[in-house]
Amino acid sequence: MSEKIRIAIAGYGNLGRGVEASIRQNPDMAPAGVFTRRDPATVTPAEPGTEVFGWSALAEHADRVDVMILCGGSKEDLPQQGPELAALFNTVDSFDTHARIPEYFASVDEAARSAAKTALISTGWDPGVFSLNRLYGEAILPEGETHTFWGRGVSQGHSDAVRRVEGVANAVQYTLPAESAIEQVRDGSRAEFTTREKHTRECFVVLEAGADPDQVRDAIVTMPHYFDEYDTSVTFISEDDMARDHTTMPHGGFVMRSGLTGRDQRQLIEYGLKLDDNPGFTASVLVAYARAVHRLARAGEHGAKTVFDVAPGLLSPRSPEELRADLL
Amino acid sequence: MSEKIRIAIAGYGNLGRGVEASIRQNPDMAPAGVFTRRDPATVTPAEPGTEVFGWSALAEHADRVDVMILCGGSKEDLPQQGPELAALFNTVDSFDTHARIPEYFASVDEAARSAAKTALISTGWDPGVFSLNRLYGEAILPEGETHTFWGRGVSQGHSDAVRRVEGVANAVQYTLPAESAIEQVRDGSRAEFTTREKHTRECFVVLEAGADPDQVRDAIVTMPHYFDEYDTSVTFISEDDMARDHTTMPHGGFVMRSGLTGRDQRQLIEYGLKLDDNPGFTASVLVAYARAVHRLARAGEHGAKTVFDVAPGLLSPRSPEELRADLL
Repeated sequence: MSEKIRIAIAGYGNLGRGVEASIRQNPDMAPAGVFTRRDPATVTPAEPGTEVFGWSALAEHADRVDVMILCGGSKEDLPQQGPELAALFNTVDSFDTHARIPEYFASVDEAARSAAKTALISTGWDPGVFSLNRLYGEAILPEGETHTFWGRGVSQGHSDAVRRVEGVANAVQYTLPAESAIEQVRDGSRAEFTTREKHTRECFVVLEAGADPDQVRDAIVTMPHYFDEYDTSVTFISEDDMARDHTTMPHGGFVMRSGLTGRDQRQLIEYGLKLDDNPGFTASVLVAYARAVHRLARAGEHGAKTVFDVAPGLLSPRSPEELRADLL
Repeated sequence: MSEKIRIAIAGYGNLGRGVEASIRQNPDMAPAGVFTRRDPATVTPAEPGTEVFGWSALAEHADRVDVMILCGGSKEDLPQQGPELAALFNTVDSFDTHARIPEYFASVDEAARSAAKTALISTGWDPGVFSLNRLYGEAILPEGETHTFWGRGVSQGHSDAVRRVEGVANAVQYTLPAESAIEQVRDGSRAEFTTREKHTRECFVVLEAGADPDQVRDAIVTMPHYFDEYDTSVTFISEDDMARDHTTMPHGGFVMRSGLTGRDQRQLIEYGLKLDDNPGFTASVLVAYARAVHRLARAGEHGAKTVFDVAPGLLSPRSPEELRADLL
């Protein structure tokens, strides 16, 4: 093992804490600090050795960080931070507003290319390892259908979006898959499902004092990209209920590819995740991709990248020889 | 779409026929012939348009084939054909004797580099997409265990190995997973299983006239790499029984990665295949990788490669822009 890969964290919420923990599971990596827009004196890292810096200290750390992992939200943080930080660092992020990925890719790509940096966008599990399985499934079984199911679980991105609605003090959003649709796909049905037939969304919301529930509910269920295509329920609860019933962040889901080969050979690929903690898993994916980004950057592969551009072997700390001998 | 990728087939058994069918599912590919060591006049391709050539015609087709897919067996065909054909063509194969992959890689690598060709070895589903999932699982959840389960299904490689035993007229081998072990992994058990605890192997064998059953049974159950580490049953049946009960080739299995993140967050990744037809699926994987090999060869990436070296996007006929917009 040569020198350790120095990984820093921009933004210190659940995802940032997950990244901090994950770095310590990887012996070829070293923590290179947390960067926060808050007053750094108010931020207490989970691991005693982690240094905390203010946002203004970013530029002076450009030479002390191999990869910066962006842990902000997709709605308000990353559209600005993605290009801003890709001009200073090699980066990895979990930008997850699917509909806006092309424009986000373009803006990060321009910043990264100008600065000769490598910026991997939109990883985690969806987008991320689920995207990989959609691609592999479609490429291997070109005559077939792909179905993605999520849940039951808390969606960080959607919870975040609800929390940003005016009048919302706190909120959590659960996505639920329709078991009947999953079973139909497993049984080889070629049925097509509408978005509404596959999932529902449940929001539990604590209102700010004086907020109008009807106005909040309406703002949520009509929110483009996030809720407008789903049957969404909004339940108003107290902060006590929230603290008691909604503190863990389990999630999961399936990517299924059902296809035909030869004359009538039915083939089914099913990729499933069962996660105790969504940000903890997402963080682990970001950290594995940070290793790949470090290697791509060293090889001069600059610009924005996605999981589709990364050879799987680049994710592993092990040598190609070891991987061939042990995992192939 | 530019010119079609010309794909040829070396060896025309179940896998070769699967590749022939799969090429026709991919509009960016064109069949460039079947090459057989038999008399080509005796080989009738499944698709009317497929041309059949003798083995001696290989060299003269070097400029008319973009990628040659090797469809011979791992035990006797590929160790010789892999390097031989990688000196003439870009190749893809399904070499599946796990223990011998390093030496096979080295011999193909040398041949391919000398000829400035690209040779992807050991793809299909195991090795192949199962290998990918072992690698992704381990890289994402470094603190955890990986378990691979196969079956119930016919293993081509193992059936082939049994058929090559002296005294065997015909044979089929089924691999069976232990459901109890699968459930233990799903439930978060960190139990370690021995090879024997995870699977058993069942062989159904038609003897040649005059063959000694005990000698055949002994040759099978002690065969290194294939059977010596498993509980293997050998049942002798008639050719009629074989034709009635053992003509389809279903298979399947799971790669599971169970790991911990943070303090005690249990995360489970499960990749499963449920295949009506094993060679039909393997063929589809080979064909998808042929597209990637064609692109790698054009980019000057020569030598032997494995699935670990191939960025997922190279498998898809779609552009990076489309993939980001539709699948990420």
